[in-house]
Amino acid sequence: MARIVQKFGGTSVANMERIRNVARLVKKEIDAGNQVAVVLSAMSGVTNQLVAYCQEANPLYDTAEYDSVVSTGEQVTVGLLAILLQAMGLKARSFAGWQVPIRTDDAHGRARILDIGTEEMIARMDAGEIPVVAGFQGIGTDGRITTLGRGGSDTSAVALAAALQADRCDIYTDVDGVYTTDPRIVPKARKLPRITYEEMLEMASLGAKVLQTRSVEMAMKHRVNLQVLSSFEEIPGTLVCDEEDIVEKEIVSGIAYSRDEAKVTIQGVKDHPGIAAALFGPLAEANINVDMIVQNVSEQGHTDMTFTVPRTDLPRALKVLEQVRNVVDYRDLNHSDTVVKVSVIGVGMRTHAGVAQKMFSALAERGINILVISTSEIKVSVLIEEEYTELALRALHTAYGLDAR
Amino acid sequence: MARIVQKFGGTSVANMERIRNVARLVKKEIDAGNQVAVVLSAMSGVTNQLVAYCQEANPLYDTAEYDSVVSTGEQVTVGLLAILLQAMGLKARSFAGWQVPIRTDDAHGRARILDIGTEEMIARMDAGEIPVVAGFQGIGTDGRITTLGRGGSDTSAVALAAALQADRCDIYTDVDGVYTTDPRIVPKARKLPRITYEEMLEMASLGAKVLQTRSVEMAMKHRVNLQVLSSFEEIPGTLVCDEEDIVEKEIVSGIAYSRDEAKVTIQGVKDHPGIAAALFGPLAEANINVDMIVQNVSEQGHTDMTFTVPRTDLPRALKVLEQVRNVVDYRDLNHSDTVVKVSVIGVGMRTHAGVAQKMFSALAERGINILVISTSEIKVSVLIEEEYTELALRALHTAYGLDAR
Repeated sequence: MARIVQKFGGTSVANMERIRNVARLVKKEIDAGNQVAVVLSAMSGVTNQLVAYCQEANPLYDTAEYDSVVSTGEQVTVGLLAILLQAMGLKARSFAGWQVPIRTDDAHGRARILDIGTEEMIARMDAGEIPVVAGFQGIGTDGRITTLGRGGSDTSAVALAAALQADRCDIYTDVDGVYTTDPRIVPKARKLPRITYEEMLEMASLGAKVLQTRSVEMAMKHRVNLQVLSSFEEIPGTLVCDEEDIVEKEIVSGIAYSRDEAKVTIQGVKDHPGIAAALFGPLAEANINVDMIVQNVSEQGHTDMTFTVPRTDLPRALKVLEQVRNVVDYRDLNHSDTVVKVSVIGVGMRTHAGVAQKMFSALAERGINILVISTSEIKVSVLIEEEYTELALRALHTAYGLDAR
Repeated sequence: MARIVQKFGGTSVANMERIRNVARLVKKEIDAGNQVAVVLSAMSGVTNQLVAYCQEANPLYDTAEYDSVVSTGEQVTVGLLAILLQAMGLKARSFAGWQVPIRTDDAHGRARILDIGTEEMIARMDAGEIPVVAGFQGIGTDGRITTLGRGGSDTSAVALAAALQADRCDIYTDVDGVYTTDPRIVPKARKLPRITYEEMLEMASLGAKVLQTRSVEMAMKHRVNLQVLSSFEEIPGTLVCDEEDIVEKEIVSGIAYSRDEAKVTIQGVKDHPGIAAALFGPLAEANINVDMIVQNVSEQGHTDMTFTVPRTDLPRALKVLEQVRNVVDYRDLNHSDTVVKVSVIGVGMRTHAGVAQKMFSALAERGINILVISTSEIKVSVLIEEEYTELALRALHTAYGLDAR
């Protein structure tokens, strides 16, 4: 007997027929002799509608009230699944976040889980019952409903799996696993049977939208066996696990890309110690996350500085940089929001040289200009013009031997 | 300064524009220097959709899960109103039933309120805040969400007004008050400025759908000053109050009608002591409410028995009566579901004779046959063929001098 947390996303519970299908997938695990707790998202589209209501009421809505409103979508789906499971002769009971309880901090709209009360759930599972838990939500220390931010149901599921010491956390979604790269762009993309937490974390934060980044962080921290699989096709998915659980490891596991960044270039900065702090301090204060940074000397005593910021924060970033002009003397401020960040990811890089070099050659051969480079222990990222996205992804996928055979 | 509970029904919060209008009506009371607590229904249509989901999942749904699902509609509207009130510069906070808490028994789907925790709400109102409370719902002793039955938001509002010792409970709806009879049928119907609890109770239970019967019972018990008024037009409504608060009292206040009944006639029952018990006992056991009853001797040693049951229970009632045939010997079982109950209501009847006689004459003059009669201290009801409904209502309205001048 294993204890399993099954999580189903919005497209998997989009209508009654699909929730019925979810009930069948739950029953299958029960019939196999397992204990199951289920975590659900809202029907796809419902949360967007509720968010739209709040914005219509007031674009500067109170986030505590927003949380009360948008959390109702999950309360509906968990109740309906409990009814369907009962109709199949199973024992089931729905739980809103406050009923579990899933205790969070009071950061409404982006709350973090503090702890989960598991006593009742474990007792119920031991008695053969299936708890069906509303994802995305919890209860703050002030007794108000909180939500965990978009995609937060993944985090709910992983946190619940960790708290219940579940043997596995299965994330059912509308894709059937994690691919070497976006299959819509690279038809030769392959589904990975296994991927390490570290790689999945980079994939998620670099634009692969299969899992919420925070849920992967949490799975890594608590060593939760995470599986991504399709709720529509009964085929093996991708297991997110420790490096030692992967026997044959490729050097590079995947190629990710993100269109969420914008490039800012400050030209002709008078070069002296402290200018980086003078530039990036005010951006940090404005809560703008600076990602890739390069600095190079342009002319005598002057330097050029290029970096990326989230595309949605670009207007604010430019405003901040205009304001610091009286402190940091520079000649020109340019920006571009037609760039894409392409990243090559793999834990094998730690032990293999030449991974970055292969990337630069592959791009150079196709005449693709690299604007900025940044590297970490297990990834190399480059910023290129957006129009080269598809070409770059296909070239790199082939160069690293990832193409399906 | 007065303390007021304002309740707005589903059509009053049907969309954002209308919720904005509700916010204005709340602000008006605050600007007048009053303390206000608000109770809301779900957007009209939403609860029906949620009920339909449950029925689609399983017609024999678990009522505890049903309650979790259908209670979400009110959670949305209270959050949105709180956001709108805040946008107007007012302090407001939404409350789901469990957050107040509104404690109920565990009779899911038709729970009764046990008590309401008012400490936090009073503290908030004293601090100038407006609590916005989800109607229709509470929390059972088992920690599960409960609902109070359709129209339950009226009861939530009255119970809250009683608990808060409010000076007034204003029920805003899509009609502008209580009329002498249905204005869609009798154009000369007049809006009553005041009506007694007892009369309102009869009106509500006899088919005037302005207020949920249970809410009137509760208002009467706790002497809550109840006002019914329109959320769309700023004109005076109807005050439901004690008899002594009404200076000029008509003998008859209103004429109500109900198409919810069906007539059952059992012919040729062998008459002996105990047959009524033998007939009505099994109906009571089957939870079928028998309303009007007449018995008359038909032939030597035999009797006919006519009574009414709720139209929706007619098939079950007939089944029960077929089954008792081996105990109660009768010749024939007839039924009709094309009948209507018309009632003349007024506390003045207690002190004035001839009210019933006037009713019988008015109907007889129009050639309307009375099938069954029942009377209470403040009402006379007759069962007639449904096709005479309009004719009867207009005739009675004129006969009792209720026509608008």
